[in-house]
Amino acid sequence: MTYELARRVAGARGSIIRDLLKLASEPGMISFGGGAPEPAAYPVDLIADITARAFLEQPKTLLAYGISEGYPPFVNSLKSYLEKTEGFDFSENELLILSGGQQCADITAKMFVNEGDTIAVERPSFVGCMNAFRSYGAKLVDIPLEDDGVNLDKLEEAFRTQNVRLFYLISTFQNPSGVTTSDKKRKAIYELAKHYNVIIFEDNPYGELRYSGQKIPAIKSYDEAGLVVYTGSFSKTLAPGMRVGFLVYNKALHQQFKILKQGMDVHSSTLYQLVCHEFLTQHDYPGHLKQLIARYSVKADKMAAMMDKYFHPSITWRKPEGGFFIMAFLPEGMDSLPFVQEAIRRKVITVPGYAFLADSSQTSNGIRLNFSLPDMDQIERGIKILGELSHEWLCQPKAV
Amino acid sequence: MTYELARRVAGARGSIIRDLLKLASEPGMISFGGGAPEPAAYPVDLIADITARAFLEQPKTLLAYGISEGYPPFVNSLKSYLEKTEGFDFSENELLILSGGQQCADITAKMFVNEGDTIAVERPSFVGCMNAFRSYGAKLVDIPLEDDGVNLDKLEEAFRTQNVRLFYLISTFQNPSGVTTSDKKRKAIYELAKHYNVIIFEDNPYGELRYSGQKIPAIKSYDEAGLVVYTGSFSKTLAPGMRVGFLVYNKALHQQFKILKQGMDVHSSTLYQLVCHEFLTQHDYPGHLKQLIARYSVKADKMAAMMDKYFHPSITWRKPEGGFFIMAFLPEGMDSLPFVQEAIRRKVITVPGYAFLADSSQTSNGIRLNFSLPDMDQIERGIKILGELSHEWLCQPKAV
Repeated sequence: MTYELARRVAGARGSIIRDLLKLASEPGMISFGGGAPEPAAYPVDLIADITARAFLEQPKTLLAYGISEGYPPFVNSLKSYLEKTEGFDFSENELLILSGGQQCADITAKMFVNEGDTIAVERPSFVGCMNAFRSYGAKLVDIPLEDDGVNLDKLEEAFRTQNVRLFYLISTFQNPSGVTTSDKKRKAIYELAKHYNVIIFEDNPYGELRYSGQKIPAIKSYDEAGLVVYTGSFSKTLAPGMRVGFLVYNKALHQQFKILKQGMDVHSSTLYQLVCHEFLTQHDYPGHLKQLIARYSVKADKMAAMMDKYFHPSITWRKPEGGFFIMAFLPEGMDSLPFVQEAIRRKVITVPGYAFLADSSQTSNGIRLNFSLPDMDQIERGIKILGELSHEWLCQPKAV
Repeated sequence: MTYELARRVAGARGSIIRDLLKLASEPGMISFGGGAPEPAAYPVDLIADITARAFLEQPKTLLAYGISEGYPPFVNSLKSYLEKTEGFDFSENELLILSGGQQCADITAKMFVNEGDTIAVERPSFVGCMNAFRSYGAKLVDIPLEDDGVNLDKLEEAFRTQNVRLFYLISTFQNPSGVTTSDKKRKAIYELAKHYNVIIFEDNPYGELRYSGQKIPAIKSYDEAGLVVYTGSFSKTLAPGMRVGFLVYNKALHQQFKILKQGMDVHSSTLYQLVCHEFLTQHDYPGHLKQLIARYSVKADKMAAMMDKYFHPSITWRKPEGGFFIMAFLPEGMDSLPFVQEAIRRKVITVPGYAFLADSSQTSNGIRLNFSLPDMDQIERGIKILGELSHEWLCQPKAV
């Protein structure tokens, strides 16, 4: 038969990055293309111990249908944790446990966005969330991201002229750019969103991995108007395969979010919610975060030092204060795709910036470099290769 | 702020049954209201052993990002299993692992249904799937279910007049009615769907739990035109908390289904996919099914015997050949809701048939009785109470 698919499916697309990463398993490849935590950093033994004990003590809790809003002890412990670490007010807000950050984006789009509605995103932005938005028929408009967050004039222009329903941002250590939105811009974004009645969808999967500088409060922490939907995840700090993420939003939205979750997959993994709960209540989660910070900050420093040493001076980038990424920029107007393709021929994988654009038929001069997955030696060798290429690329006339 | 939600959210609703089941935990309640396997039937020790070994041998496989289409060894072993048990042809079809049957319904609606499109369902039908369909703005039209499947004239009328995109049926041991669609009607449904270019969404979570009678081939097994999307699950046979379900559909749809799954939650639990894989390849899964059949058929027999003994003769019902449910019917035209409410006052929970209607503002004379969860003594006592009530209800003039 000839299949007539829903219109929204035409907008859905795969991740360019996932295709790129298939190359990463080829022998001799050095990959800066990934975006995941280092497997050696998973707290395997603790997760295995908690799992074994849970199967011994409460197997039927693990294996029966669970509760759509989340495993109750974890809902409580995570609320306490977020009150303490983020200053959230759970007399006004509620928490919903979901199957990873990706489902958080999916359900938020399902909740607020009609086909043809506009979602504003940062330029560049995280491709996984943009794909979730597209899968509900959303129109994306992108707002240029500067060193301290989006350009406010452009954001206001979009709010004023395009009936934006939702503004999606990763407020701290953004993927792919590494940018952290400044406190001043966060407050300005909040005021604009309030004025134009736009929901802010604040994504913060990397915020706890800060290597330097001062923590900046989440927009959600001063959201008295109830317009921020905040999302976090244990994918970067414990393990992505557990698929544990969460949303925090105004209480008035709880009943509808619960119903949507129930209709999507009934509930998220009780086992892995219990693992997260035990981490928060029985183990030294802050100590675990400190270990991760030690592990990744060394790599961030190394990558930055190597880029300093080897990259052509006309390539610009900023040393990251946290997260997993550095974004390097070829001179304004240059397309990074041929550079990335040549680098792959030289066995170094990076992600070309166009993959992170709302309209991926446009070009970008950005190149995303991940430092969480490669080891120190790969960082040194890979950046050297990219550096040599940058000198060839920028000092010689390009072959046509 | 005043929240403006997506239109589809207005159609989404919670399960009436989930609300009812909150009563089930009250002391002294006998519940025939559930729809889950008996926790004592979960193969806890084996699942715990497989889990412990997996964490020892391949923790990083469990904890890293997995593959959106499913854990590859499980995809292969499940294809082999379905080739053997259901006669599916995987040279023409593909398999996608999803997070339980609920996600299978969600993604299928997302794939095929635009807001305002019509989905035909059986009358009565499974409320969880209807809620998933509603959450994409689908209009539901219900087709009366007879003892051997839906009324074909009404089905054709709907196909002819209502631009139906999808026909959803549980072909074997339907929830809530217990009805199995006959081979003859399956073939007629298939021909109608082919003629009117309608996708058949064939749901079969109970098919392996047959207590008597002959297996009837799934419609998918002779789907040469590629119009059947088939869904199954390990929730009834292993454990619902594992959230492992799957779709089988024509290869031409695979790329788009994978992309949708990636955007929804990246991938389903690798751990529990591995548990299912081990069951299919290293353990005696057919033997496990035999044990379940022995366990549940005794309960089905008991409930049927008690209904024979205690129920007023004007209540009609059929002895189930499998699955978890018997549906009893008050005389034509009577509303079962007051009967169910009075039974709850007498400490017996059942589900009123209106909960399973596309338009739940209508009334139904049906009452769903679950026999998988209560024990033998509860079945005896509970049916006796319902039986006594039926005699009062049907022999005396009702108080107004």
